[in-house]
Amino acid sequence: MIASEKRDAIADLMAEYAYRIDRDKLEDWVNLFTEDCLYKVVPRENVAQGLPGVLLICLNRNMVHDRVTSLRVANEYNIHVDRHVIGAPRLTAQADGSVRAESNYALFQTNQEGESWLFSVGCYEDVIVFQGGKALFKERVVIVDTYAIPNLLATPI
Amino acid sequence: MIASEKRDAIADLMAEYAYRIDRDKLEDWVNLFTEDCLYKVVPRENVAQGLPGVLLICLNRNMVHDRVTSLRVANEYNIHVDRHVIGAPRLTAQADGSVRAESNYALFQTNQEGESWLFSVGCYEDVIVFQGGKALFKERVVIVDTYAIPNLLATPI
Amino acid sequence: MIASEKRDAIADLMAEYAYRIDRDKLEDWVNLFTEDCLYKVVPRENVAQGLPGVLLICLNRNMVHDRVTSLRVANEYNIHVDRHVIGAPRLTAQADGSVRAESNYALFQTNQEGESWLFSVGCYEDVIVFQGGKALFKERVVIVDTYAIPNLLATPI
Repeated sequence: MIASEKRDAIADLMAEYAYRIDRDKLEDWVNLFTEDCLYKVVPRENVAQGLPGVLLICLNRNMVHDRVTSLRVANEYNIHVDRHVIGAPRLTAQADGSVRAESNYALFQTNQEGESWLFSVGCYEDVIVFQGGKALFKERVVIVDTYAIPNLLATPI
Repeated sequence: MIASEKRDAIADLMAEYAYRIDRDKLEDWVNLFTEDCLYKVVPRENVAQGLPGVLLICLNRNMVHDRVTSLRVANEYNIHVDRHVIGAPRLTAQADGSVRAESNYALFQTNQEGESWLFSVGCYEDVIVFQGGKALFKERVVIVDTYAIPNLLATPI
Repeated sequence: MIASEKRDAIADLMAEYAYRIDRDKLEDWVNLFTEDCLYKVVPRENVAQGLPGVLLICLNRNMVHDRVTSLRVANEYNIHVDRHVIGAPRLTAQADGSVRAESNYALFQTNQEGESWLFSVGCYEDVIVFQGGKALFKERVVIVDTYAIPNLLATPI
């Protein structure tokens, strides 16, 4: 059983995650993770075959922050905008009070001509902890089905 | 903090909005707005650049209703069907008891040959009020990422 | 009014449904239905025109199970993976304690080269019952907008 306060906090966290990326508030997006977080992007193929390769790995929040900084330097002009649509999470209570959450996402992009396309689908596998009534990502592993794409990691998924 | 009754009412409103458009119950869809509502569709580009141009604006529910009437006259045959998939809303309580809600959407269309495609992605920026335990749109601003499309406003987004 | 325990149980069921198909846990997926369930896939066109044709019909859980068995035999190699993104359900309480739920879905597929595409959009029309605090599908009618596709029913929608 997961208390409704936790359910609400998780729903808020999921919505906030999409909001902060899609509005290009990446510096604030970083604060949705715990200091000792793990943030990882992995192709589904590698998970299925037990291969170790990842597309991106950050072993704590500082590394997530560095990632944002390098994006800011590398991409002087924003060439696309993101739009996440995330399904309801599958929740599993953990003995230590944290919650495992798995949710599917579809990520769309739009270019400066106003043309949109499906960019990536996959799922989030999270460990969510609660601090002062708020939910934070202790772990977010993004499993991407769609890996046959150029410039995959221009912005976070 | 947003009480769970309000959260439920908002979730119901969001689902009802999609349902009434996608089932072509547009006359009932109008009743999801308050009498003094604002309903507006704006390209994201214009919002980002502070440009005043809108794709559609209705300054009250009567204007929303007129919009439906003109659709009924203009489109004698329904040439496509809509399907909205809407993400969980990001909620912010307001001092006056209303709630601001922001949610991403993907809108798909299907033609009479049964072929579907991505029609539009974007987000809803709402002010939601509560009357008799029900949630209504006092304001719904649709920010469309996808504006490079023909016949954009055949049906509401 | 629908109690929040029921709402939570329904949200869990929806997430679980997507999870078990998308992870290819089809044998477990069967257990989300009641023994006397109805599971049916119908083109939207047929519903609109009152035509009787269905794409798939299972009149109880044994038939759902048989369907999975035949899939396992027919598809020795998994040639694509599924990813469901499901919107919030529109809920209607029934006199007998069950709940009718209608939710839109977008189903994406990805091939072994990591390319993803929109496969099907439509909606679920469910009758949900509750057993021991858990929600189960007494009825799930899948109305598919997208019927102009090859190998439609390789895996469940």
